[in-house]
Amino acid sequence: MFALNTWYVACSADEIDGRPLGRRVCGQAIVFYRAEGGAVAALEDFCPHRGAALSLGRVTEGRLVCGYHGLEMGPDGRTLAMPCQRVQKFPAIRAYPVIERHGFIWVWPGDAALADAAAIPHLDWADNPEWAYGGGYYHVACDYRLMIDNLMDLTHETWVHAGSIGQREIEEAPPRTRAEGDAVTTSRFMDNIMAPPFWRMALRGAGLRDDVPVDRWQICRFTPPSHVMIEVGVAHAGRGGYEAAPEHKAYSIVVDFITPETETSMHYFWGMARNFNPGDRALTAAIREGQAKIFAEDLAVLEAQQRNLSAHPARRLLVLNIDAGGTHARRVIDRLVAAERATAPPALAA
Amino acid sequence: MFALNTWYVACSADEIDGRPLGRRVCGQAIVFYRAEGGAVAALEDFCPHRGAALSLGRVTEGRLVCGYHGLEMGPDGRTLAMPCQRVQKFPAIRAYPVIERHGFIWVWPGDAALADAAAIPHLDWADNPEWAYGGGYYHVACDYRLMIDNLMDLTHETWVHAGSIGQREIEEAPPRTRAEGDAVTTSRFMDNIMAPPFWRMALRGAGLRDDVPVDRWQICRFTPPSHVMIEVGVAHAGRGGYEAAPEHKAYSIVVDFITPETETSMHYFWGMARNFNPGDRALTAAIREGQAKIFAEDLAVLEAQQRNLSAHPARRLLVLNIDAGGTHARRVIDRLVAAERATAPPALAA
Amino acid sequence: MFALNTWYVACSADEIDGRPLGRRVCGQAIVFYRAEGGAVAALEDFCPHRGAALSLGRVTEGRLVCGYHGLEMGPDGRTLAMPCQRVQKFPAIRAYPVIERHGFIWVWPGDAALADAAAIPHLDWADNPEWAYGGGYYHVACDYRLMIDNLMDLTHETWVHAGSIGQREIEEAPPRTRAEGDAVTTSRFMDNIMAPPFWRMALRGAGLRDDVPVDRWQICRFTPPSHVMIEVGVAHAGRGGYEAAPEHKAYSIVVDFITPETETSMHYFWGMARNFNPGDRALTAAIREGQAKIFAEDLAVLEAQQRNLSAHPARRLLVLNIDAGGTHARRVIDRLVAAERATAPPALAA
Repeated sequence: MFALNTWYVACSADEIDGRPLGRRVCGQAIVFYRAEGGAVAALEDFCPHRGAALSLGRVTEGRLVCGYHGLEMGPDGRTLAMPCQRVQKFPAIRAYPVIERHGFIWVWPGDAALADAAAIPHLDWADNPEWAYGGGYYHVACDYRLMIDNLMDLTHETWVHAGSIGQREIEEAPPRTRAEGDAVTTSRFMDNIMAPPFWRMALRGAGLRDDVPVDRWQICRFTPPSHVMIEVGVAHAGRGGYEAAPEHKAYSIVVDFITPETETSMHYFWGMARNFNPGDRALTAAIREGQAKIFAEDLAVLEAQQRNLSAHPARRLLVLNIDAGGTHARRVIDRLVAAERATAPPALAA
Repeated sequence: MFALNTWYVACSADEIDGRPLGRRVCGQAIVFYRAEGGAVAALEDFCPHRGAALSLGRVTEGRLVCGYHGLEMGPDGRTLAMPCQRVQKFPAIRAYPVIERHGFIWVWPGDAALADAAAIPHLDWADNPEWAYGGGYYHVACDYRLMIDNLMDLTHETWVHAGSIGQREIEEAPPRTRAEGDAVTTSRFMDNIMAPPFWRMALRGAGLRDDVPVDRWQICRFTPPSHVMIEVGVAHAGRGGYEAAPEHKAYSIVVDFITPETETSMHYFWGMARNFNPGDRALTAAIREGQAKIFAEDLAVLEAQQRNLSAHPARRLLVLNIDAGGTHARRVIDRLVAAERATAPPALAA
Repeated sequence: MFALNTWYVACSADEIDGRPLGRRVCGQAIVFYRAEGGAVAALEDFCPHRGAALSLGRVTEGRLVCGYHGLEMGPDGRTLAMPCQRVQKFPAIRAYPVIERHGFIWVWPGDAALADAAAIPHLDWADNPEWAYGGGYYHVACDYRLMIDNLMDLTHETWVHAGSIGQREIEEAPPRTRAEGDAVTTSRFMDNIMAPPFWRMALRGAGLRDDVPVDRWQICRFTPPSHVMIEVGVAHAGRGGYEAAPEHKAYSIVVDFITPETETSMHYFWGMARNFNPGDRALTAAIREGQAKIFAEDLAVLEAQQRNLSAHPARRLLVLNIDAGGTHARRVIDRLVAAERATAPPALAA
């Protein structure tokens, strides 16, 4: 179950340089490409001629050219030309609202009339020279809401990521969850502890000692439809923790864009934005490599969980205090979907 | 949807030398082997004893011997012997009419009483020392009719096969389609053009200059159930084109036997027969290698098209002039299937 | 179709040393591990918190620890602890009766109240220093009853295992089948023949000449739910055959534990117990390697047979004298399943 009248990240901007990209979003096969002038376009991945996949074609002078018989498609879903054919009466294919922003391609899989570019989240760190960003992509065979649960309950770090970011102090610090409108925040503060391996690396990267106690924080923010931004960091103990001056802390934002592919599979765009040593590319690469390993550890866990839930669809799960973040997030999603179904025309509500 | 009371190519003759071959034709699992004296036999791939796959067995002195318990099967589907068993009352398995001709094994998956060897198409080039033939096999996960469409509309060559046989002049020359009885012909003539790479190689192979303008032709002939023979060639320009004397042209026949495996998968037997330099085996191998690459380019396109059509079964496609060949061919198939269902006994009509 | 109120082999004892093992038995996903003190436990492979697969977790001081959020599970299916949680009201997950015996882990997938440790078969050769055992595991995509058929009709050896244990004399010696209560025995005696390769190796391993005629025997014993023990051996001809004194024969028991995974897949635990040269580890390894090759030859045959039977579910198969063992075994299984369904509470009978 997912909302349709909203923006999802479809791909990173550099995934569609040069040739078209086919990707399924919310069950719909979509082709993404750069049209004339470089603006991104998103269309049904279905040639109106004989149903070929347009994503197997090419982009020539900003026109998406079908790889089967050379039909040239415009960014509005109307055929521009086809060799020796009159194309005026060709049926249009669906064009999706799509916007490039913050280094990502955002697509609106629902009612195009409702698409509002202002609803794309503002990201402080994007396009900001004081910040650096590195990230990657994973395909995961699970309901996207299992990934939201995962990210809104970081006690799993102790168990899934024991060798990198996990530590027993996480589960010993009770989380606090707040819902404000459609946003949900789960916070956890751990004072005067030793930093785990990932954070020792980050401290060194920030030019700070890594062998002294720190205050650590994790502030997970869910916003609809399925974005989770996590403020994470450590400060040398006693310097104010989260509020410490920049020279005493290593601080960053774990970025998670989660896009439903089908009811039981998803696209995962993960990354980290940091505001220390933003110009250090080797550090960016090292962090990215570390994150890639960490998030890969989640995949087997989530996919096995999905298989179990699919085999036992009616079984009730527990909702503990640590699950409050995911539970509140699901309520927000349920509310949005219900509202959307109540107002959608019958065809879209199906 | 496919006709059953007709001959399909099941395999090339050399695929069944030595040991049995299991292959699904029109949804039916069939085992092919050489019985006593070398004549080919085709039987249900199902041992009457316990259902083992006979194709996993062996052929001993012309008997198909089940690899599980040694039951010996005759070419009529009746058990000949089984160690220490009386086999007279064993139920027969289905035997299919089957004929070896032109280097291929032809099978009749429908009502055996209607099988007529004379209905196997005559092929001028087969068993003719003035011609040479080379070819190969591909399995393709698409409705066999998508391959007929593909071959009856060669404008796709410009896009799918840009590096070998495609050229813009193909789509600029309007095709002409004729239906005569059950046969459909689509022709295209391109005069005074430069030959594309494949045909430059063929000109050289025929001992002709490859750097002068040529007249090029493509004459696609569909005959039921799903054979497409394409006369293709180039002649030095102004020598009469298709009608030019042999010393001025390189000419051949693209051979396509298309056999349904299931509703959405097929066996593709492709090849080329030529009547220039028939004794030049290196040329035969070079052409075959070139064709293998060219036809492999179609596979991804066709399989993605099938996935799109399976996801949108009710969606209407365009029927342009270039699609006339495939459209007429489908009409012939529809007519044959309807006639066959009207007269078939209920069991076969199911 | 399989009985549930019975013991099946779930794995060999050494498969669960150190970390938990997930395995599906009779359609149920189960996790096996060694609890405190080393006793084996078997639980639903489903964490009561959020449905994670417990088999992806670890075992710490005899507690099964979920790899997602650290829930600690006890061997009775009740949660022992979870970081910073009160677990008293957590719902229990299903615990299965499970016993380690004879080097295997036995699980009872049905009504736990009926589980009776005494029903695990006694095995003379297990835990007996005069015997040696070696074996292995295969997963096979077929109904487990096809494997019972296979093992109760050894005429297949001549065809499937021609290079090792097969010989024409097997099928020439008519088998004799007896059913006594729930046990079924099929015997075959072949006198004064030359031993096939496997048995020549075994004769040499037993310190006996391998180039003289032997009397050979095969006595297949089925016991419910799906165990087949086969007494096999050769004695120098004229020394009494099966009854010959130990110094004249090489004798062993082929051990087959067959466990349904789903309706069309199974776990196969195969091995051989012998009472000659039990201390010769190289001989144990050689026999095991030979068996591994022999049983691997059955897999393709059985899986193709299953595909054929799935495609033709209503088709009747032959029941010959050689099939009597399998046929009787199926009758025993049918009887047990019918009895179990007649008395089971509605939920279990579903």
